[in-house]
Amino acid sequence: MSQLSSLLRTAALAACLLPTLALASAPAPSPTAAPTRPAAKAAPITRIDPTNWFVGMKNPKLQLLVNAPGIASNQVSLATYPGVTLDGFEKLESPNYLVVNLTIAPQAQPGQLKLQFKGNKSFTYNYELRSRNQDPARVQGLTQADFIYFLMPDRFSNGNPKNDVVKGTRAPRMSRDSMYARHGGDLKGIENHFAYIKQLGATAIWPTPIIENDMPKASYHGYAVTDCYKVDPRYGTNQEYVQFVKNAHNQGLKVIQDIVLNHWGSYHHLFLDKPAADWFHAFPSFTRSNYNAYPLNDPYGSQRDRLLENDGWFDTTMPDVNQSNPLVATYLTQNFLWWVETTGLDGYRIDTYPYSEPKFLMEWGKAIQDEYPKLALFGEAWEGTEAEQAYFAQNIFPPVNGFKSNLPGVLDFQICFGISDALNSGDLTKLYRSLQGDWMYVDATRNVPFLDNHDMSRFYSVIGEDFAKFKMGIAWLLTLRGTPQLYYGTEVLMKNFSDPDGKVREDFPGGWAGDKKNYFVSRPGQAGEAFDYVSKLANYRKSHPVLSSGKLMQFLPQDGVYTYFRYNDGECVMVIANNTKEEKTVDGTRYAERTQGFSTGTEVVSGAVISDLKTLKVPAHTAWVVELRK
Amino acid sequence: MSQLSSLLRTAALAACLLPTLALASAPAPSPTAAPTRPAAKAAPITRIDPTNWFVGMKNPKLQLLVNAPGIASNQVSLATYPGVTLDGFEKLESPNYLVVNLTIAPQAQPGQLKLQFKGNKSFTYNYELRSRNQDPARVQGLTQADFIYFLMPDRFSNGNPKNDVVKGTRAPRMSRDSMYARHGGDLKGIENHFAYIKQLGATAIWPTPIIENDMPKASYHGYAVTDCYKVDPRYGTNQEYVQFVKNAHNQGLKVIQDIVLNHWGSYHHLFLDKPAADWFHAFPSFTRSNYNAYPLNDPYGSQRDRLLENDGWFDTTMPDVNQSNPLVATYLTQNFLWWVETTGLDGYRIDTYPYSEPKFLMEWGKAIQDEYPKLALFGEAWEGTEAEQAYFAQNIFPPVNGFKSNLPGVLDFQICFGISDALNSGDLTKLYRSLQGDWMYVDATRNVPFLDNHDMSRFYSVIGEDFAKFKMGIAWLLTLRGTPQLYYGTEVLMKNFSDPDGKVREDFPGGWAGDKKNYFVSRPGQAGEAFDYVSKLANYRKSHPVLSSGKLMQFLPQDGVYTYFRYNDGECVMVIANNTKEEKTVDGTRYAERTQGFSTGTEVVSGAVISDLKTLKVPAHTAWVVELRK
Repeated sequence: MSQLSSLLRTAALAACLLPTLALASAPAPSPTAAPTRPAAKAAPITRIDPTNWFVGMKNPKLQLLVNAPGIASNQVSLATYPGVTLDGFEKLESPNYLVVNLTIAPQAQPGQLKLQFKGNKSFTYNYELRSRNQDPARVQGLTQADFIYFLMPDRFSNGNPKNDVVKGTRAPRMSRDSMYARHGGDLKGIENHFAYIKQLGATAIWPTPIIENDMPKASYHGYAVTDCYKVDPRYGTNQEYVQFVKNAHNQGLKVIQDIVLNHWGSYHHLFLDKPAADWFHAFPSFTRSNYNAYPLNDPYGSQRDRLLENDGWFDTTMPDVNQSNPLVATYLTQNFLWWVETTGLDGYRIDTYPYSEPKFLMEWGKAIQDEYPKLALFGEAWEGTEAEQAYFAQNIFPPVNGFKSNLPGVLDFQICFGISDALNSGDLTKLYRSLQGDWMYVDATRNVPFLDNHDMSRFYSVIGEDFAKFKMGIAWLLTLRGTPQLYYGTEVLMKNFSDPDGKVREDFPGGWAGDKKNYFVSRPGQAGEAFDYVSKLANYRKSHPVLSSGKLMQFLPQDGVYTYFRYNDGECVMVIANNTKEEKTVDGTRYAERTQGFSTGTEVVSGAVISDLKTLKVPAHTAWVVELRK
Repeated sequence: MSQLSSLLRTAALAACLLPTLALASAPAPSPTAAPTRPAAKAAPITRIDPTNWFVGMKNPKLQLLVNAPGIASNQVSLATYPGVTLDGFEKLESPNYLVVNLTIAPQAQPGQLKLQFKGNKSFTYNYELRSRNQDPARVQGLTQADFIYFLMPDRFSNGNPKNDVVKGTRAPRMSRDSMYARHGGDLKGIENHFAYIKQLGATAIWPTPIIENDMPKASYHGYAVTDCYKVDPRYGTNQEYVQFVKNAHNQGLKVIQDIVLNHWGSYHHLFLDKPAADWFHAFPSFTRSNYNAYPLNDPYGSQRDRLLENDGWFDTTMPDVNQSNPLVATYLTQNFLWWVETTGLDGYRIDTYPYSEPKFLMEWGKAIQDEYPKLALFGEAWEGTEAEQAYFAQNIFPPVNGFKSNLPGVLDFQICFGISDALNSGDLTKLYRSLQGDWMYVDATRNVPFLDNHDMSRFYSVIGEDFAKFKMGIAWLLTLRGTPQLYYGTEVLMKNFSDPDGKVREDFPGGWAGDKKNYFVSRPGQAGEAFDYVSKLANYRKSHPVLSSGKLMQFLPQDGVYTYFRYNDGECVMVIANNTKEEKTVDGTRYAERTQGFSTGTEVVSGAVISDLKTLKVPAHTAWVVELRK
């Protein structure tokens, strides 16, 4: 999600720019709001978060947030449980919460902890400790060999019409003719098209957040979470999500969960009934983020600009979570350990990464990576320069203003801008430089290049619906370093601009029973050509690791031609792109460092033979991906 | 100088793109080429470089390059001289050179070393060791309190018509109607106008290189040196240059010498008669630099692109010096120690800094700074991004590809681009970000911001001859961090574009006897207003150290208004710029961090009183420099 998302802005305006106080007095959660929430065993308890925990975690500490009317007046004790100790409990500002601190020794066994509450009403709560799941197919992480298909579950396919409208939610309706309403897509819809995604050559699925967004308006995008422990019922149940991940793994597809650390939805139960005021950032009147990370490392930055970036609200409907409150930090950390352990997901895509508090980001990243070193982590840092983007990933800089990111990778906005700018301006150094800036990263191969996303105008529109340029963009995306990401529909030339109507989140044709067009089955004309181009190249990439794990060497763009190589000891693929209106004859001897030992090549999509590597005649607006031959 | 200089390109074309071999066979130096060269005492010696040396240097080593026909067959010995030892001597490829290595102990006294040469002809050469000059007015360095006036000596003022045409040079003529010919300006011309430069508020003078450029064509720019130890006779003698620096110091003006490490002119005596072939980079045929530093730290850069950047020739008339040859490195290092010690100059501006070999740059920078820690050093690194520019200055990065710059500062192209782009596009973040990028420097206050230079279109033309924007640019230049530089004539609205005619190096009006306009004396209309604006602000800056040495705080541009502050414990100056077509009412409470304790202010150029810091009404296209008052 980004400051540039006109959809969100429009939604925010529709929400009447409610000030904080007005939001705080919104109605209490409906008792039916969380019908599939893991059950609280003892009636007096509204909920305990985490809803369960696990034995054998590397960090033995567990902090429970107990929520029940008036619970703060209770005393807590723990019935003897081998390996588990109660370290203490504490009241918060609200009478409805207690924090309970436990230590779980490595040898503790799965079972039910008996938490004994004594006060006006005394009762016992059975809190479940589960065993960890050791299935090696879980938490695979990502490598450069992967190719991520990014989609909006509400807009991709409706696999289960029964969950389209869920009674008890704040928006129990759907309307496919509105960009801001729910359209009915769900996890089952994605699952129904695993074969399509695989045919395309993708190896991983990243849906926009699938966590509950029980908001009255524009909840479909998923970035206004209202229950951190629950899948949105319009997408499926928690159990269905667990099965979704398992099914994906069985099909050879990985799953990336899209998460938000910075903010929640204004109908989040912890905002409607706050544990304490300091769980959220508040200003005398509603105060928006400045959507600008530059002050954070600006040696001349003002405290005010830094405060607005980190503490200002992303939107009227998105309270800014106070991550400098250690209880909040722990709540968030445990939540995202819980999802990995519960589902076996392969990676997190972290929304609005620079908006979170720097110190928290470091602690959170360490806690997650200590527990799950294989888990993929990449963040959204929508910045304007290579250096600013690198600042939010593991980089070569010393700490600046106390911040040293431990995030393995970022969504590579520089590559995105570089590709579009190169294609539109003709200046190929735009892309060359985006890669050249990799010297600032510890390992830029963990970045995720892309052409467009749900917040941006669609790639095909950005490049003027020029099919030759489209293929060039795809050729680059799938042959550069990193794990590429494709936004659903880009492969069939879906188009539109993010401004003014936001129609970059349209339904995938064929995702709904009765759709006139079904692009899952039949893709006429250029949509089909586009799909085939992506699919051929992505599948070639899958079977030729040199294209993903090989080293990269690029040459300075010259005379409208940009050339790089992916290579290893025995193999070499040349990617040569002519971004001019004329055929170019290129002196290939310039590339002797990489072409030595090879004499011919085959363009891997068209199958054309390149018979002379010393004199390359590259047609206008064409990128060749050439497997070199001896 | 830069790859973008159309003047040089044009000159290069005029030089018929001579290949290396053709250049190497250029005529031998005329015996009259160096009429004022410090005399070689013994007839058989053509020259010895350095032409003299000094006792008491921190580095006791001295390497002499002895040049004489057939000298290589000679043996060398040294007559007893307390504190000085002959470490050895060596032949080179050419029979006309000998390298002699000496050690000069700290206690050695000034005097004449007797170097005894024995061979076909035996003779003794008296080599002079001078005492060091301890005058504290020498080698002052620069601080942010300085303001540099940058000029082309051939184009500023002709103070001594007798040296306009020097017989024996390869271009014994002048022609003021040609942009590529000599116009007759000289050191005396600059000296004659020290008062003008001081009136403007400048405190330092940087002329383009004043070293001999005895080239047949386009020698006026000075970047094709033909004798490293001699002032160009069209500008004056070595003695006159020493006096020039002294006179400048007496007037409170510092002197920056413009130097080139990367290349020499093709009529340099060491190119015409090479000590050895490996003193220069050579290719099978003439090979130009790619004018591109990006491959140097590109993790995917090719060896070929790196080689072309560092070893390719800057121009057909500019052989690329092989700095990885230790003899060459020592020659260059001693040369630039010699100029400091000989003249007492205050700083070096280093041309084409990224084109030199990275390892040499580190060694050279260390040697110069070890000897002269106060000397100002700033380089030309004409790069496209903040990070790339910072890579060539002292920065926070670990070594990349073995290079870690020790250059204190750079010419701040990012500020230059930022100011022009901000004024032309209306997007003030262009300038904001140029400053924000300072987090990558060890100390960006040692950078030199500027609006234009001899290789670029003139500022006033770049901004569409918009006088309001001109004043905004000047206001920023003189109130930002760093040591600002103004290109001669910008203060009187000289204009023109670098392409296609290169008329950005025109004569300063009034610099020649008989000029119809004399802007030194009378500046009618907006030229006068422009001068007065610069002069008032620069002189205010001189008398108010807060504006140069104060801390800097900037606020994110908002609604077309960009605001920053220079401040110390008791003082605060606000620079607030409205770059829109309408008056803007700005909520000043946003700046409370800096305005707290102040209630009013005075705009320092106009004298206007700003009565309310909480509500600021800033006129269209206006930058205010406001001294805050309690």
